[in-house]
Amino acid sequence: MAGKWVRMVTAQTPTNIAVIKYWGKRDEALILPVNDSISVTLDPAHLCTTTTVAVSPSFDQDRMWLNGKEISLAGGRFQSCLREIRSRACDVEDEEKGIKIAKKEWENLHLHIASYNNFPTAAGLASSAAGFACLVFALAKLMNAKEDQSQLSAIARQGSGSACRSLYGGFVKWIMGNDEDGRDSLAVQLADEKHWDDLVIIIAVVSSRQKETSSTSGMRETVETSLLLKHRAKEIVPKRIVQMEEAIKNRDFASFAQLTCTDSNQFHAVCLDTSPPIFYMNDTSHRIISVVEKWNRSEGVPQVAYTFDAGPNAVMIARDRKAASLLLQRLLFHFPPNADTDLNSYIIGDKSILQDAGIQKKEDVDALPPPSNIKDDIPSHKFRGDVSYFICTRPGRGPVLLSDKSQALLNPETGLPK
Amino acid sequence: MAGKWVRMVTAQTPTNIAVIKYWGKRDEALILPVNDSISVTLDPAHLCTTTTVAVSPSFDQDRMWLNGKEISLAGGRFQSCLREIRSRACDVEDEEKGIKIAKKEWENLHLHIASYNNFPTAAGLASSAAGFACLVFALAKLMNAKEDQSQLSAIARQGSGSACRSLYGGFVKWIMGNDEDGRDSLAVQLADEKHWDDLVIIIAVVSSRQKETSSTSGMRETVETSLLLKHRAKEIVPKRIVQMEEAIKNRDFASFAQLTCTDSNQFHAVCLDTSPPIFYMNDTSHRIISVVEKWNRSEGVPQVAYTFDAGPNAVMIARDRKAASLLLQRLLFHFPPNADTDLNSYIIGDKSILQDAGIQKKEDVDALPPPSNIKDDIPSHKFRGDVSYFICTRPGRGPVLLSDKSQALLNPETGLPK
Repeated sequence: MAGKWVRMVTAQTPTNIAVIKYWGKRDEALILPVNDSISVTLDPAHLCTTTTVAVSPSFDQDRMWLNGKEISLAGGRFQSCLREIRSRACDVEDEEKGIKIAKKEWENLHLHIASYNNFPTAAGLASSAAGFACLVFALAKLMNAKEDQSQLSAIARQGSGSACRSLYGGFVKWIMGNDEDGRDSLAVQLADEKHWDDLVIIIAVVSSRQKETSSTSGMRETVETSLLLKHRAKEIVPKRIVQMEEAIKNRDFASFAQLTCTDSNQFHAVCLDTSPPIFYMNDTSHRIISVVEKWNRSEGVPQVAYTFDAGPNAVMIARDRKAASLLLQRLLFHFPPNADTDLNSYIIGDKSILQDAGIQKKEDVDALPPPSNIKDDIPSHKFRGDVSYFICTRPGRGPVLLSDKSQALLNPETGLPK
Repeated sequence: MAGKWVRMVTAQTPTNIAVIKYWGKRDEALILPVNDSISVTLDPAHLCTTTTVAVSPSFDQDRMWLNGKEISLAGGRFQSCLREIRSRACDVEDEEKGIKIAKKEWENLHLHIASYNNFPTAAGLASSAAGFACLVFALAKLMNAKEDQSQLSAIARQGSGSACRSLYGGFVKWIMGNDEDGRDSLAVQLADEKHWDDLVIIIAVVSSRQKETSSTSGMRETVETSLLLKHRAKEIVPKRIVQMEEAIKNRDFASFAQLTCTDSNQFHAVCLDTSPPIFYMNDTSHRIISVVEKWNRSEGVPQVAYTFDAGPNAVMIARDRKAASLLLQRLLFHFPPNADTDLNSYIIGDKSILQDAGIQKKEDVDALPPPSNIKDDIPSHKFRGDVSYFICTRPGRGPVLLSDKSQALLNPETGLPK
């Protein structure tokens, strides 16, 4: 296996949004949760991580670049993933390139990793979930590991808990498991993305001045101090998991929305019950909830579900395209773009929703009438600039290999970032 | 008992702030709570209701004026209080005026009631608690009812739950009771205001654009929809009540502060766990919590407790005058008054705390240095105008009769508002 060859694999992995939340670990090192969780995988066309992993006898250490900048791999979470996946490496033979790597050689070979998010890392959109899922998926392919997606998810979990749910498309359940070593704490697919393809997702990226508590330290503090968390994890979530699986199976949007919203709110409730309290939602988040709740009530049946992770951004799931375009009108009425923001950068992702909403230019936003249900009772406040931008997307597929060499992030000769 | 006489009584009753919260009724009509609660009575010099009640054979109906404006007494809560107190009326003899009212005559006599709050009713400062307590206390005196304060508290409770705690000064416990008719759901004094007279209270009246959910409908919705409330009421609050009584008895500020803050946060957590969620705190409330929590942490031992009722206003309880003046400096640093607000109307109540803080004029506020604990880690943001004003006060006494006739709110000849 001598020589200057470089073997590379490039993969693309989606991010995901939990509809039954993961909050609290029973084991910090292994990242074992206190309850099951369920998520929807988001379309990688709009939110994904692309990762190229490379191996070469010429590499003298493991190295990683994130969004073009070299970062340290010394952290325990990277080390766990690398150790676990290396121990599952198998013989690799690439006849075309004349490369042969025996199973036992992997422990002495070094890796180069380059990763890129097609969305702002700092926006609080679960970049670590997509990132660790992509790292583990790509390395498994590189190393010819025989593990299936669920077994890989248990490795990705050790990088970032919610990463395990990004190994599948569609609707995914992270089973908390019982084993002390965590081997049964892994993700399974409940349904693929085609099962319920009416759903449309709109994400409001909310401007924030607050420095947020990281989810790692936040959930540790909740486990240590909240008297409500244990009751949630033991008594409430197990029932909700069963109900949510049923709602997804039956494409029962009313139940899906009710469970999604109440579980998001309960997650933020246990954050507030933490000492000192953790606030992830801000006034803008509250106003978005209010817009959605009022509309759902005025329609009689839920049109939109909302859910918030460890930050102020709202993820809204509309029952269909019609509801999504009406939602977008309402959102744009209350949260119009700043004067210096153009519409094209204010609504990103699947812009066809914007066309459905009859909005072609910024003047169309200013001309939006107040939503009908608020005419009488509350003043139609506008909060210009409180949302940074919106992303229109949908449920999407799981990880894929990118065979097009031009999409690799590392140079095939040097193994360094292009 | 013929003639044109008017018999009048004027009383003054404090408001109170719960440190273990009341949220949720087990009986809506009788106002019976799902758990015990504990409050601190606030000094009536700064926050109180004054009520004059009058009876005369010349009155042809029950009438009431609140802050000079006539209001309806038709509501069930007023009717409950009037009915209950009338049924306890006794013989009255006023030799000086030559008035004799026999016990059985009360049911045919009409009442005039005038009530006045020495603080803005709309500020969300528990005006109904002081109001109903004062109404019941004054009527009991007018009608020579023999009931003690606890028995009166059970009547005031039927006007507004938290009103029962305003029948005593100092530290007060509302015992939830067991009887279906509510007779054992009443307030008792844990300690009077002299027991722990180091405490200083600063209230931040927070500007808000939001229309808030009333506490009556809010707590009904929480009872109906929150899965966490029952656990709080049955498992958590009973233990906290015991701990809080102990902390008050021992003047143990560290325990008092920890229990006060966590219980306030848990109350807001169950509001958030309500469907649709209820948000009483806003970004300014969160920032005030952050200021207090950071300072408490930097000092090692708690200097200040915070608690929030059904609105964004912060009630902060400082361990002593020194802590209160340092707290006021911190608050004024982060929340300076608007340019058009003068210091005298920005800090009201006990202004000696302002002197202790070394602040004589508005320029002194602008000259405040950033609090020492935030120098390094977080930017020292200022949120000018986000607080409307501050009230400096302390724990205070219970209801008193005002014998000075000039303080009566009704004309002694006509029984109409002065």
